[in-house]
Order: sequence, then structure tokens, then C-alpha cells
Amino acid sequence: MEKNKVKKLKTAVLGCTGLVGQQFVRMLGDHPFFELTFLTASKNSAGKKYGESVHWCLEGDLPVVGGEIVISDTSVEAISESEVDVIFSALPSAVAEEIEFPLTEKGFIIFSNAGANRMRPDVPIVIPEVNPDHLELVQPLMKNGKGFIITNSNCSTSGLVLALRPLVGLGIRNVFVSTYQAISGAGRKGLSSIDIHENVIPFINGEEEKIECETRKIFGWLENGSIRDMSLDVFAGCCRVPVREGHLQNVMVDIEEDENVGNIAHIMHSFSSIPQALRLPTAPEKPLIVRSENNRPQPHLDRFAGTPDRARGMTVSVGRIRKKGKRLLFTLLVHNTIRGAAGTCILNAELAFSKNYLSAVHC
Amino acid sequence: MEKNKVKKLKTAVLGCTGLVGQQFVRMLGDHPFFELTFLTASKNSAGKKYGESVHWCLEGDLPVVGGEIVISDTSVEAISESEVDVIFSALPSAVAEEIEFPLTEKGFIIFSNAGANRMRPDVPIVIPEVNPDHLELVQPLMKNGKGFIITNSNCSTSGLVLALRPLVGLGIRNVFVSTYQAISGAGRKGLSSIDIHENVIPFINGEEEKIECETRKIFGWLENGSIRDMSLDVFAGCCRVPVREGHLQNVMVDIEEDENVGNIAHIMHSFSSIPQALRLPTAPEKPLIVRSENNRPQPHLDRFAGTPDRARGMTVSVGRIRKKGKRLLFTLLVHNTIRGAAGTCILNAELAFSKNYLSAVHC
Amino acid sequence: MEKNKVKKLKTAVLGCTGLVGQQFVRMLGDHPFFELTFLTASKNSAGKKYGESVHWCLEGDLPVVGGEIVISDTSVEAISESEVDVIFSALPSAVAEEIEFPLTEKGFIIFSNAGANRMRPDVPIVIPEVNPDHLELVQPLMKNGKGFIITNSNCSTSGLVLALRPLVGLGIRNVFVSTYQAISGAGRKGLSSIDIHENVIPFINGEEEKIECETRKIFGWLENGSIRDMSLDVFAGCCRVPVREGHLQNVMVDIEEDENVGNIAHIMHSFSSIPQALRLPTAPEKPLIVRSENNRPQPHLDRFAGTPDRARGMTVSVGRIRKKGKRLLFTLLVHNTIRGAAGTCILNAELAFSKNYLSAVHC
Amino acid sequence: MEKNKVKKLKTAVLGCTGLVGQQFVRMLGDHPFFELTFLTASKNSAGKKYGESVHWCLEGDLPVVGGEIVISDTSVEAISESEVDVIFSALPSAVAEEIEFPLTEKGFIIFSNAGANRMRPDVPIVIPEVNPDHLELVQPLMKNGKGFIITNSNCSTSGLVLALRPLVGLGIRNVFVSTYQAISGAGRKGLSSIDIHENVIPFINGEEEKIECETRKIFGWLENGSIRDMSLDVFAGCCRVPVREGHLQNVMVDIEEDENVGNIAHIMHSFSSIPQALRLPTAPEKPLIVRSENNRPQPHLDRFAGTPDRARGMTVSVGRIRKKGKRLLFTLLVHNTIRGAAGTCILNAELAFSKNYLSAVHC
Repeated sequence: MEKNKVKKLKTAVLGCTGLVGQQFVRMLGDHPFFELTFLTASKNSAGKKYGESVHWCLEGDLPVVGGEIVISDTSVEAISESEVDVIFSALPSAVAEEIEFPLTEKGFIIFSNAGANRMRPDVPIVIPEVNPDHLELVQPLMKNGKGFIITNSNCSTSGLVLALRPLVGLGIRNVFVSTYQAISGAGRKGLSSIDIHENVIPFINGEEEKIECETRKIFGWLENGSIRDMSLDVFAGCCRVPVREGHLQNVMVDIEEDENVGNIAHIMHSFSSIPQALRLPTAPEKPLIVRSENNRPQPHLDRFAGTPDRARGMTVSVGRIRKKGKRLLFTLLVHNTIRGAAGTCILNAELAFSKNYLSAVHC
Repeated sequence: MEKNKVKKLKTAVLGCTGLVGQQFVRMLGDHPFFELTFLTASKNSAGKKYGESVHWCLEGDLPVVGGEIVISDTSVEAISESEVDVIFSALPSAVAEEIEFPLTEKGFIIFSNAGANRMRPDVPIVIPEVNPDHLELVQPLMKNGKGFIITNSNCSTSGLVLALRPLVGLGIRNVFVSTYQAISGAGRKGLSSIDIHENVIPFINGEEEKIECETRKIFGWLENGSIRDMSLDVFAGCCRVPVREGHLQNVMVDIEEDENVGNIAHIMHSFSSIPQALRLPTAPEKPLIVRSENNRPQPHLDRFAGTPDRARGMTVSVGRIRKKGKRLLFTLLVHNTIRGAAGTCILNAELAFSKNYLSAVHC
Repeated sequence: MEKNKVKKLKTAVLGCTGLVGQQFVRMLGDHPFFELTFLTASKNSAGKKYGESVHWCLEGDLPVVGGEIVISDTSVEAISESEVDVIFSALPSAVAEEIEFPLTEKGFIIFSNAGANRMRPDVPIVIPEVNPDHLELVQPLMKNGKGFIITNSNCSTSGLVLALRPLVGLGIRNVFVSTYQAISGAGRKGLSSIDIHENVIPFINGEEEKIECETRKIFGWLENGSIRDMSLDVFAGCCRVPVREGHLQNVMVDIEEDENVGNIAHIMHSFSSIPQALRLPTAPEKPLIVRSENNRPQPHLDRFAGTPDRARGMTVSVGRIRKKGKRLLFTLLVHNTIRGAAGTCILNAELAFSKNYLSAVHC
Repeated sequence: MEKNKVKKLKTAVLGCTGLVGQQFVRMLGDHPFFELTFLTASKNSAGKKYGESVHWCLEGDLPVVGGEIVISDTSVEAISESEVDVIFSALPSAVAEEIEFPLTEKGFIIFSNAGANRMRPDVPIVIPEVNPDHLELVQPLMKNGKGFIITNSNCSTSGLVLALRPLVGLGIRNVFVSTYQAISGAGRKGLSSIDIHENVIPFINGEEEKIECETRKIFGWLENGSIRDMSLDVFAGCCRVPVREGHLQNVMVDIEEDENVGNIAHIMHSFSSIPQALRLPTAPEKPLIVRSENNRPQPHLDRFAGTPDRARGMTVSVGRIRKKGKRLLFTLLVHNTIRGAAGTCILNAELAFSKNYLSAVHC
């Protein structure tokens, strides 16, 4: 990429005070394409400096850039083209539903982590290593001079489809996944300590349906300008565990082709895709790492897998690959607020940027 | 006590859905003096059966009695003399401030865990083993046919004054206490898991002031119908730790009399008081246990100290007593929602009952 | 049962200082059939009083009975018929392998929680509600005047087979279970805090194999005096989570008969078996409880399910029953050191006692 | 410093597999003065590559350098002058007691984190920002051509003396400290999860004595070639809490001079010392940070305070400064295995290096 030519895009983060919002602010603090200039939050925070309003929850101090930005109210009116080239949305679903589409009608391009619009036919769910071609779904909107929304998947789905992607060619059927999800997935105030402390909660509202539907859409293909879902039975059982970051998943999947464990591990470990070829800034050198130790991956040890530094938390770790007949079992770990949220959302924007989908806005 | 003569009092719990409210419901499920008949909560819960509305957080199922009671709105109007003889309040402080005194003006007797009214001159803070005589403070109100409020102390204070009570005669000065407080002290929704998970928070709003003021008031004496605080320097540093129940405290106190550690341990361990003499139902056989092991008390092992069964969690455990010159150091543990809240509140009511302070209401 | 005729059996617990050993001591503290008289542990503890040697880890103080017993060395020689009628073994597997069979040759009857001998053809794995008939496997040994071993299953297996038992008649195939196992399952010193703190470990040595093999054996049937395994594909993925007690499991199983979720829930909830019919002392009123809430069972709230008091922790809780085609999914919770270990072991002994398998020893 | 002239010293880490050993290996992975070339551990690990033997517990993969080194047995004989210029010791105290002095007799210079030799009169305990002059204590040994030991303090002490150092000039008396110590302080296998999970343990063997004695020695002064302790009453109450890293401490200290809180905060926050002036590689820009928020420092948010990157975890955070009369209270946080162990030990070596105490070895 010819970085030296780039004029950075003025960048907004909607919903900047939550945990995913904080990851956006952290990851956009010194980004080669995007310059953080605009932050929105609910009315309580609007008008205050970010550094004085946010209840910062990430290890290390908040970046100086960002800390000084005065927060705006999250509303269609508050966001103007003169101040914002590209938008990242970390909004709660209900707010996203109200505000994201109206913003596209004003011409804005939104990379959204919100679940609200993921299943709409004109909105792709993109994991850049998995289905970069789905970006094309927004071309009709672009041609009409409109804005558009590109979403990343639900946090658990992102880890699952990354791990399964290199296996698709072997024929995958009947996915069963049991999740061990971290508390940060519930958001800044989503979970009372008294509920999850020293406990497991075997239910996360809407999560199982998202994993099942989003996986089928992401593995789907473009047909006459719309996405046709893959036909794949996906069963998910989702539990919250008392871990801060890192969703672990026990996966069972039927593989049609007769391939041994060693080859499957090799196929997964050596997987590489478009973001790696394009050397996108937030792309990890390796989307997947297969661990050979029998007790890995573990949230504490593996959640920040990923090099270079900017891609810390972008690599999905896989381990315990084993097979019984056609049944393949393995364990994966994905950093839920980085690869599972802000990180993939930024990687989507980098992919779109590199493909000139954002050219309209910065010329 | 002549239990067989007792006609049980119709009993209300205000603020029944919170953690202290739940302890009240649990402890009043089968009480010899009090019959749980009336529950109040905020408007969200009013009109629903308790069993269907409460987010039960205590180990074991909620008691059948209680589960069937339809919750009333927390308001002065909702509580009538025909339905309620005696009131326990587990209200948040702001609500207690609005509602408790107006209820006394309607003639109600309230045993309150709320902090709102503790420091008022006509309201005693009573720990039955420590200052049972402070009950007298409400006699002028009784004589005027009015209701009154009897409070128990803040959760941390209750453990501290119980442990110090047998030492008062030796001359205590300069108390410094450093607390390790459990998450249940912050209430049902008071603490987000992301904040306290794998963390210590060195600040609890208002807690240090409460420990300092309430200790002086509880150790004060009646003088012309009002309480004169003890002159005692108390310094508290309060931290939240990721433990569910049980406030541990490191205490340093100067002792004027020259007494050795063995005698001090004996004085504490053998401490007994009015509730034990009266054999009140919720009184523990021993208010204090001194552990000889060098690594006790511990929240996990000692929080439920107390016999008989009804007094589980009512005994304060003390350990690691040591002395350097006049400086006495020890560690104590108090179950914060039982001895530190609902349990002492009920014990106060039992004491008042046994002294016929409640006779007006049940004749 | 004619309890009043019973002369209690002199009872030994081998391996009394570990977590399962402590549960045995707790549960045998006041048992109607068994009188705790003999305790063994490794040489480090031998010769000391139990109360002074054990690092007690259960909430509440250790029972007075037990605390005063002087620990013997765990060896074949140390255990004599004059002092011991019946043996419970909480030995580590390696020690159990050396000592349990030699003890049977001396005529002792052993109820063992150890994994060492479970898969031997002359040793049944019994869960009294599931396969009480497997007790018969030891009759040839009895007839020859020898002792015998009756094992309970691995902790996770016990919950799984109890939940599946009422569904066997509907035709079960292809079980996949993903576990969330508590730290107490690793024993007193089995797990360093630095490893599991704020973490999930996706591997427990030997656990998956045990679940797979033991399930098939327990669901097998007696054929010519030996057990023929059920033909059933079982896949397990076992993880350790930072919870003290209570193994949660996400289960997927194919059901051949076309039965709806409501009926399946009813079949499970109303399940009752021999121990309930015999009113064995440690038998829970209900072996299974089906919870209707969408976020249950949870370790904190449900691990001690079970009435009467003696059966606390003996009921397995089931929730989130749902079905997609023939695939049945549900979540279960089993208290791993009670129902999953000491409790079932004692229930086995009660069953054997009630069937006069122990009559030889106490006449 | 003239870095480009430096020929790196061949560096050994004794006791490389423990948690402090791992921090040494991590921090020496790319050090400007020291080249990690030699690792020792117990016989179990000797002969294996570090990367294959260590149970790595730090977030992120172990450094490539180090991973390839074959571990030697920890013995005086195994360490030769041809292979090793300078030694860092992370040995358990009992092993350190046997081996460190014999190594000095062979001429080795040892920077030791072990407690064994700290209180010897010819061994200084040095915190480079606090008492760099104590290095001189070893000059007689140097002049005689012998090796010597320089220790850093106990983990808790290091945070305490750093925070108190800028206040010494105001006259400090009567220190009382109550600690909230992380589990990593107990070492790799020092603490069973069942003991500390959801618990607080109010006892850490030897810790209180270390804090009390080491503080007096560090604040002492050189007098005729030996250290004369400061006369200072120090009282410590030490508890273990379920946090991975970061020792928090509630401190109360009497200040003789009448100085207000604002000035005290300023004095602490602006504290700087020799390592900062010398720009030693592992010296943090600021040894102390005073936080103005009322709920800081917190282990999760502040344990890695310190810039530049190499000094992450070397800054002690202070907060909640308040005063009542002469009593000063505050809370501090120190990263126990970095500033409290390996980091200060390396900083000591950098200081000695910059003062040419190590010149003998590398010419």
C-alpha cells in the first residue's frame, strides 16, 4: 500500500463509552488511514471531554488523542459531512436500528458492530479473511450515490467462521458449538457482578440465534446481487463464564472428506487470505494459530494472539483438534472485543479503503 | 421466653427484591415472633408475586412463604395498620429518607437497615450485643403514641463494634481499620462485573465516614435522653474485593491497659451479652469466635459462623490477634448481609419484642 | 426401612483429607446405617487427629465426630476386620489401584470413588437411580465369601447418565457433551490458582475418555454375569472453569422417537427410581429437577439442589431443553463432589445395605 | 549512557521456571546491557530446552531468545565464569541460602530477588530510586576481589518504600500498612486454587516481618561501612486476595511536618531519582504516579503503569491521599513480579553497571 499518499479520513465512533467503543478509540489512536475526530454517546455524556466522561476499562491509560475530543450526542443531526468521512458504530442494537440507516441516507458509510442491521438483505456481514467478496453487496447503493452499512458478525460467530473457513473445502455439515463467553461481551454495565461471580450462566439473549443465522449468511454466496445462505445446520449453546476477555468455544463439526487430523491442523494453521495479502494495517500475520499443546488455547494466555502489535487480539487460536470418524472436534479462542468486534470492524474498513470503496469520501 | 403465648406479628419487608430484602424474606420464612405477610418494592415489581418477580440470588430456593405474596408499591399509602404490625426496611437510602419517617407518623415501628436516618438524634443505631440500652432513645416517641425507627449499623461497622465491645473496658483509642468488602455489599445491581472482576476497588462511597461516625455513636452513652458520642479516633480505608459474601477487616487499635494477647483472646471469645441471656431466636450462641489458626478467619470458611441454624452468619470471627506495645492488631470477618444487615435488624426487633416495645402493636 | 433394628456398621474412609474425603466425613457424621470409626491418609497425616491434620475446605466447621479420630496410614495391613465393617474409598487412582483389590481379598467391601477399577469386568459402576441392577455383578464374589468393589462413576458422568436415563426409552444416539467443570474436581492441591484464575482450561486429563466409556458401561446390561456396553457414540469436550463447585454441561443428543420438548421435560422432571422407592437416607426426593427459567441451572444457585437436608447436592438440575428436529439440547448441573462423588458412593452403600449385600459383615 | 560502546554481559537467571524467573526471561529478552545466555532450574527441568520445559504463565508467547536455551541444574558447579558474567537469582529462599554465597566466593556478582540473604549485614537491599547509596556496602568485597550479592526487597516492601521515600523529609513515624496481595506473589505452585478462589486469606508466611524489617533497613544509612536501620515503627497486616497481579496497600503514616494533602500529592507525583537521571533502560519516567480519581489505583487498571515500554509495571500508583491531623492515609499499587521483583532486580543491575560495579566482569 502506498501509505505516504494517504490523506487520513476524518473518523467518527458512535457509542464511544462502552467497551467496544473504548476498543475503537484505542485502536484508532494512531491509525494510518483513519483519524479519530468525532465521538458520540448518549445525552449523559454529550458535551463532556471523552477523557473526563468515559469509565475507562482497558489496561493502560486511554490514548491522549480521543481523551480531548468533546463528545457529541448520538443523533442523525449531530453528524455532519464536513466533520466526518467514515463512521464506526459501537451502538447498542436499539439505537443502531434507529440511526444507522438514516445516516446512510445522508450518504454516510458505516462500519457497524451493532447487530441491528446484520440480517438485512442489502447489508453484508463481512469477516475480511472469510468472505471479502460480500462487500460487493453494497455496490448498488454506492452507484446510487448513497451511503451503506458493512457489519461484522457477532463476537462468537467471528471466531467460529474464521476457524471453519479453511475447512469449507472439505465439506462441513452439522456444526455444534458450546461457548464459554467472557463478561466483557455483555458490555460495560450489562452484567451485575453478583450474577456472574463464581458462576456460569447458561443463557445469553439472542446469541445462539445469531451464531446460527450469521454463520449461514457469511458462508453464503452472491447470487444476482443478493446473498444466498449456505445450507448448514448450526447448533449453539452459549454460556457466560467469569473471565474478562476471550470467548472460548468447543466445536464439533462433521467433515465429509476423509482427512486426517495432522492435515486438518496444517490446513488451519497455514490459512491466509486477502487482508494478509494486502498487508492491511490491522490484519494479523496469521488469522489462525493451531496450538499443539493439549491444554491450549486458554483465555489468559492466548486472547492477545496476533502480530504485529496493531493486530494483537486479531488471531484466533485453535487447539485440541481430534477426530472420531467424520466428527471433527476442536477448541477455539477469539478475543471478543477485538477480533470479535472493533478489530474486525476496522479491518473491514481497511479492506473497503484498499478497494477504493471509501474513495468518494476522501477526494 | 414463653414462646407458646406469642401471637405472631404481621410483618412487612420494604424493598424486598434486593439482596438484603432477600435475606429478610429468607430469615423471616419461619420466625417464631414475626409472620411475613407484606412485601413492597418499586413500581416495576408491584402487583406481581414475589416468586415471579424477584431475581433470587441466595443459594437454595426461595421460601414458599414469601414466594406467594403479591408485592405492593413502596409508598406510605400502601401500608395500612390492618395489614402490618411491624416493618423491616431494606430500602435504598434515598427511598428510606422519603418514606420511613412519614410511616412512623402513622404509628409504625420500623427496624431499618437503611443508612438514611441512622445519624438522627432520635434514632438509635443498635447492635443488640453492644448497646441494647440505646433502645431507650425511642421511649419519648413511644410515650407520645408515635412510631419510631430503630436502625442497625452499616455492615462493616457491625463487625467492628462487636469485636471491639469486649475491649472497651481496657481502654480503646485510635482505631484504624482496612476493609476487604464483598460484592454483595454493593447490592443486587450495584457493581458491574467488569469493574470488580479480578480487581480491587479502593473506594466505597460514604463507607469510611459511616464506619467512623457510627462507631462513635454506638459506643456513646445516653445522657439526658440523647446519645453522646464516644470520643474515639476512627480511621477507615475501605476496599471492595471479588468475594461474594463476608467483609474481612484488618484492625489496629491502641489499648490503654496492659493486657496480654492470651487474655485479650479469652475476653473476646467468651463475650456474651443480652441477646444470649434472653435466648433471642436469631442470637448466636457466641457473638464472637476467636480462631487460633494463623490463617483464619477467611470469607469462604467462616462467613456462616453461628449456631443454632437460625443464627448462621450471626457470629463474627476474629483471628490473628497480636500486639506490639500498646498496639493491638487483629483480623475479623462479618457476614455483611446477615450480621451486617438483615440479621442484626431482626435481632433488634426480637430484643424490642422481648422488652415489650412492640406490645402496643400486637394487643 | 426398619431403622430401629439397625446396628450401625463400623465405617472407614480411605483418603480422608482430600476434598472427596472431606465430603465423606461430613456426610457420614450422623448417618443412620454407618458409623464413622476409621480414617486413613498418607503417611504425612497418619498418627494425627483428623481435626488437627485436615485442611478443611468445606463451608462450616468439620463435624465433631471425625475430628477426634486418629488417622491411620493407608495400607492393607492397617485395616482390620475387627475395626472396620465397610469401606469408602476416596483414594487417588494410583493408590486405589494398589490397595483396593488386596483389601477385597481380605474380605472387605469397598464403595469406591476412585477411577482405578471402574472398567474392570467384575466391578460395576453404579448410579442407584440409573442401573441399580448392576450390583448383581458382584454376586459371584459374594458367594465365594470374598469382598468386592462397587464404584460410582466419574463426576461428570454421574450427571450425564442421570439426565439421560429417563430418555433411554425414547432411543438415544450420538451424545455430545461440553463441560464446564469446577475447580474442586481437581482435588485439594490439583490446580494452582495461577493456572485457573480468570481463565478456562480446555483439557482435563482422562476426563473425556471416562465420560465416553463409563456412560456406555452404565447404560449396558447384564448378560451371562457380565456387563455388555450399550452401543452409543459419546463425544465429550471437557473444560475447567473458575467455579468452586458444580459441573455444568451442555448436552446434545439425538432422540429417535418423535417427542416434543414439553413431554421430554415432563419425563425428566418426574423421573424417580429405586432409591426414592426405598427411601434411602441420602436419596433425594427428586433425582432430576427441570427448571423452566431460561437461564438456569447455574452453579451458584443450583448446586445444592436436593431435599431432604441429607440429600443437599444430590439432585441434578436440568434446564434450557430445546429441540431441532431429532436433536435435543439441554444444560445440566451436578454437584461434583456430592452427587458426582461422595454422595452417590454413599447412596450405593445404602442400596447395598438395603438389599442385604452388607449383611455378612455386621452379623 | 554510551550504549553503542557496550559489550553485553553474559547473563544467567537462576530459578528460571517460576513466575519471577519468567519475568526475568521476558525482561532480559532484548536488553541493552545483558544478554541472556544461561538458565538454571531444579533437576526435573535440567537438560531440557526452556521453551519445552517452562509452564509459561505470562500473557503473550515466551521470547524466542530464552526458549532455545538448554536449562542447567541449579548448582554452584554448573555455573562457570566462562559462560556467565552476571547472575540474576529468582531462587526459592531455601535454595538461595545454599547457593548464593558460595557463588560469590567463586567471584560471581548476584542480583537476587530471594529473601534468604537480605538481612545479612554485608548484603544491601536496594531500590534504586530509594537508597542507591546502599550499593556501597559491597565495596569491601569488591576490593577483595570477591563477588557480592545485591538484593531487592520483598514485593510489598518495594511499593511501600517507593511511596514513602519522598515523604521521609517531612518526618515519618508509625507506618501501618494493610495489604491486598495478588496470587502471583505466591509463585507458580504456591497456592491451590481451592484455597484462594472467591476468598481472602489473612496470612502470608513471613511477609509482615519482611515488610517491617526491610523498610527499616532500606531507610537506614551507611555508618562505618554498615547500615544502621532507621528507627521507625512499622506494622503490617498482609492478606492474599483473588487477583492475578498487583499488590494494593492501604497505608497510614504519621507525618511530623504540617503539610497539606495537595502539597503531599505534588511531592509524591514529582518524585524522581538517580535511575531517572541516569536514564537507566528499565527506569520508569516516573517512579510514582498520583491519581486524582477517588477510586484508583486498581490492580486491573494500574498494575502496568510505567513508560517507556520496557518500564511497564515499574511505576507505583498512589491514590486516595487524605489526612486527619498528622495522620496521612493513602492507597498504593505495585506490580509485584515486576517492580516488586524482577524489574527492580534488573534496575539494580543497571545501576551497578552504570557505576562500573560490573566492570571487573566484562573486561
